[in-house]
Amino acid sequence: MTKSNDRDQVLIFDTTLRDGEQSPGATMTHQEKLEIAELLDEMGVDIIEAGFPIASEGDFAAVTEISKRTRTAVICGLARAQLGDIDRCWEAIKYAKNPRIHTFIGTSPLHRAIPNLTKDEMRNRIYETVSYARNLCDNVQWSPMDATRTEWEFLKQACTIAIEAGASTINVPDTVGYTAPKESATLIARLIEEVAGSQEVVWATHCHNDLGMATANALAAVGAGARQIECTINGLGERAGNTALEEVVMALKVRSDIMPFSTKIDTKKIMHISRRVSTVSGFPVQLNKAIVGKNAFAHESGIHQDGMLKNSATFEIMKPEDVGLAGTSLPLGKHSGRAALRAKLTDLGYEVGDNQLKDIFSRFKELADRKKEIFDDDIIALVSITGDSSDDKLKIVSLRVLCGTGGPAEATLEMEVSGEDAIATEFGDGPVDATFKAVRSLYPNTASLQLYQVNAVTEGTDAQATVSVRLEEDGVVTTGQAANTDTVVASAQAYVSALNRLFVRREKFGSGTDKKEISYKELS
Amino acid sequence: MTKSNDRDQVLIFDTTLRDGEQSPGATMTHQEKLEIAELLDEMGVDIIEAGFPIASEGDFAAVTEISKRTRTAVICGLARAQLGDIDRCWEAIKYAKNPRIHTFIGTSPLHRAIPNLTKDEMRNRIYETVSYARNLCDNVQWSPMDATRTEWEFLKQACTIAIEAGASTINVPDTVGYTAPKESATLIARLIEEVAGSQEVVWATHCHNDLGMATANALAAVGAGARQIECTINGLGERAGNTALEEVVMALKVRSDIMPFSTKIDTKKIMHISRRVSTVSGFPVQLNKAIVGKNAFAHESGIHQDGMLKNSATFEIMKPEDVGLAGTSLPLGKHSGRAALRAKLTDLGYEVGDNQLKDIFSRFKELADRKKEIFDDDIIALVSITGDSSDDKLKIVSLRVLCGTGGPAEATLEMEVSGEDAIATEFGDGPVDATFKAVRSLYPNTASLQLYQVNAVTEGTDAQATVSVRLEEDGVVTTGQAANTDTVVASAQAYVSALNRLFVRREKFGSGTDKKEISYKELS
Repeated sequence: MTKSNDRDQVLIFDTTLRDGEQSPGATMTHQEKLEIAELLDEMGVDIIEAGFPIASEGDFAAVTEISKRTRTAVICGLARAQLGDIDRCWEAIKYAKNPRIHTFIGTSPLHRAIPNLTKDEMRNRIYETVSYARNLCDNVQWSPMDATRTEWEFLKQACTIAIEAGASTINVPDTVGYTAPKESATLIARLIEEVAGSQEVVWATHCHNDLGMATANALAAVGAGARQIECTINGLGERAGNTALEEVVMALKVRSDIMPFSTKIDTKKIMHISRRVSTVSGFPVQLNKAIVGKNAFAHESGIHQDGMLKNSATFEIMKPEDVGLAGTSLPLGKHSGRAALRAKLTDLGYEVGDNQLKDIFSRFKELADRKKEIFDDDIIALVSITGDSSDDKLKIVSLRVLCGTGGPAEATLEMEVSGEDAIATEFGDGPVDATFKAVRSLYPNTASLQLYQVNAVTEGTDAQATVSVRLEEDGVVTTGQAANTDTVVASAQAYVSALNRLFVRREKFGSGTDKKEISYKELS
Repeated sequence: MTKSNDRDQVLIFDTTLRDGEQSPGATMTHQEKLEIAELLDEMGVDIIEAGFPIASEGDFAAVTEISKRTRTAVICGLARAQLGDIDRCWEAIKYAKNPRIHTFIGTSPLHRAIPNLTKDEMRNRIYETVSYARNLCDNVQWSPMDATRTEWEFLKQACTIAIEAGASTINVPDTVGYTAPKESATLIARLIEEVAGSQEVVWATHCHNDLGMATANALAAVGAGARQIECTINGLGERAGNTALEEVVMALKVRSDIMPFSTKIDTKKIMHISRRVSTVSGFPVQLNKAIVGKNAFAHESGIHQDGMLKNSATFEIMKPEDVGLAGTSLPLGKHSGRAALRAKLTDLGYEVGDNQLKDIFSRFKELADRKKEIFDDDIIALVSITGDSSDDKLKIVSLRVLCGTGGPAEATLEMEVSGEDAIATEFGDGPVDATFKAVRSLYPNTASLQLYQVNAVTEGTDAQATVSVRLEEDGVVTTGQAANTDTVVASAQAYVSALNRLFVRREKFGSGTDKKEISYKELS
């Protein structure tokens, strides 16, 4: 049971790995999901929605592994209102210290029309599925999808039935991001007042940001009695995304005078997890994003605010340190040793094993030889890229590119394909196009390029550029990333890394099993 | 006077060119400001805050020119509570059909401490400055900066004095992004109820997004009686930015059932102006940004939503067409003529003159020779880049770059410097670093690189990459942009373009006159 004994504590339910990962193109690897789950657990998230086990073999494997590893948080899996979904969900989460089954059904007229159920049939389905889940697991959450567009009487009945059937948390989703704060508050208050058994359960709010009000809607619901907020890091999620964890948590902290509710989140870990989620999802955070945008604490970046800023509170309602932005930077350079690097990594929120440190250190030395000043972001880029690559099917041996204003760019690539060395020269519109053509000439494939993105992770042109490449083949999407001071080399590495990941997924699960095809199918 | 006769109409006050442009690094050129002002006017913005005339010569020139050119909107200039500021503001806006002076003073204890005024002295200053402004201009707006942290009694008195002195709009700023919807509504309602003369003025709300609630706070204020919303395109602005115009406007449109207020905004123009502001400010919009993010209407991007999405309303509360996202694309290719290009430009929201069309068309043909498919974004990139460059001090003649895994990159650059041809070869960490070194070797300068950013504007590696380069020298910031299918060539062009702009600013205004140094200086 996760019902808080403390009336003023708000449970934080993070769905970065489920709703967040449903964003088009945000697909994460197995390893990345485990890492994010660990960070969420460490930062004090109460409930982690780890995935949608029936959606794909990959989701099932990730939820299972996260259940086995997580120390503190409740691990939750999603299931539609079908017994097979619920069984599969339980199979994955049963290893957790504190498992939770989250089952849902669309209750609004538009959503009821899809499985073509009458209201009576839907009432029966809710009772049947929630009690089935409750027989497997003590901790069951139920959600009426599109609650904010469901007729009041039917919504009330449905919630009552779910509670009777054994749900311990009722989550009220604003699936299409349609509500406004006052309406959000009224809905929760009325449900708590009129639903029989409402005092026995935790009421939760799940908002989307289509009209830019997800944070305010979630907090208004808390003001009206909700005690669980569903949210994601960076507001990741379908369309305009979900409520951003960092915004609701910091708003509750900064405005505890008018919102006297606490969370267990260690806010100092916010920036680190924000950066990691941005990197692994390939979704950059905009400069003016609240809390975690680069400009959110712009007094850092050297604007002249002479006079007025003698008192920092004049323009500052929270301190950069509160969200884990490093105050001063420890200078690292080519003479720095392994201990200094480890201290810096700890400072940035990374705990690495000895082998990983060795790997990062050798890359760090290589970088320090080429770059005068090493910034925090350089270090973060180094950590992000290390990983086991010994099994890769494709390995770049060398690349030589000629480009400029004189004509098409020319790329000569030497690459190992399944252990065999091969070489090719191709021409293209610019250095990256020529390079990618060379990769395709050495390893013909049908994967289509969905995204090509360059982020110079530190300022200056001697910076390491991080390149993300997103590929799609038969409904399977993978993302490859690489960092290098040479953008063209980073592009080649990222492309090859995405291809290698595609092979792994194809071998493990076959093609065409991507969750996007199943998650919205008709209930039957 | 801009007081609306219609009690249910909300005036949209856009401050992209003033508060938005104060974002660190978002500085726009004179030409860009004129373009954005024209787009704002065309989309139906009621009041355009065009700048802060006393802050710099550049701001003064832009506000003056915008005043002369704008057809419909009220043109507003900002002025601190000083007679010199107000005179300078009037000098710039007096050419407008409908000018407005906006004067402000910080009223909270923290802000009162800066000019070290007693409450009595501040009351006198408010009366003196507002009545002085009113003698110059019929339409005066007054703002108590940091209103949400000002003692209630003093705030009430200050507003009463400003109304007595002749202000016709009272704006209530949440300068540090501190408030929440219920509090925002209560403050406005109480001011309207208790301030003498409150019925004679328009009440306005100006919110910042530090806690992610700017949109909800602005709409809550409207619910309580405010009839002017201050906002910016893409939520541009200091720190986490201002209320986003697109969010408040679309929320009022979509939820007219619970918020029965209209605006004059032509919502179909939203996407176009959002893209232009993103380009000229160099602030990318994140994928999951509400309304204008690439994923905001993610059903467009081909997720499988079989079954459920037979009825699009199931997940859609507004249509992409409502905000000007093109429904179907008109295929353009190497065989398309000038008329087809003009039709496409019109479709994308660009009205171009014959000369400009000629220029764009020749660039379009050149691109079509190299690229199989021309996307809307390619066309937008073409339009963004054209401009008069005949006076440029630096001109790239040719560039040849060799890079790859084998060692440092090598760039050979031929460039015209003030009419003289010169050539240099430099080595660097990657192709861009080598290229920039070559530029600096041919034209030594002390400008520091603040930002280097690559956006592949269309998907695929044969896409045109748009590169932004931001330089800073003695407090003057300029941004250069260029698009090319070769990222390295685009980088060189953007760097040289930023340098050329730096010369222009230096020659016109001297160095060190950037507004960032003045806007927050002590009131004296």
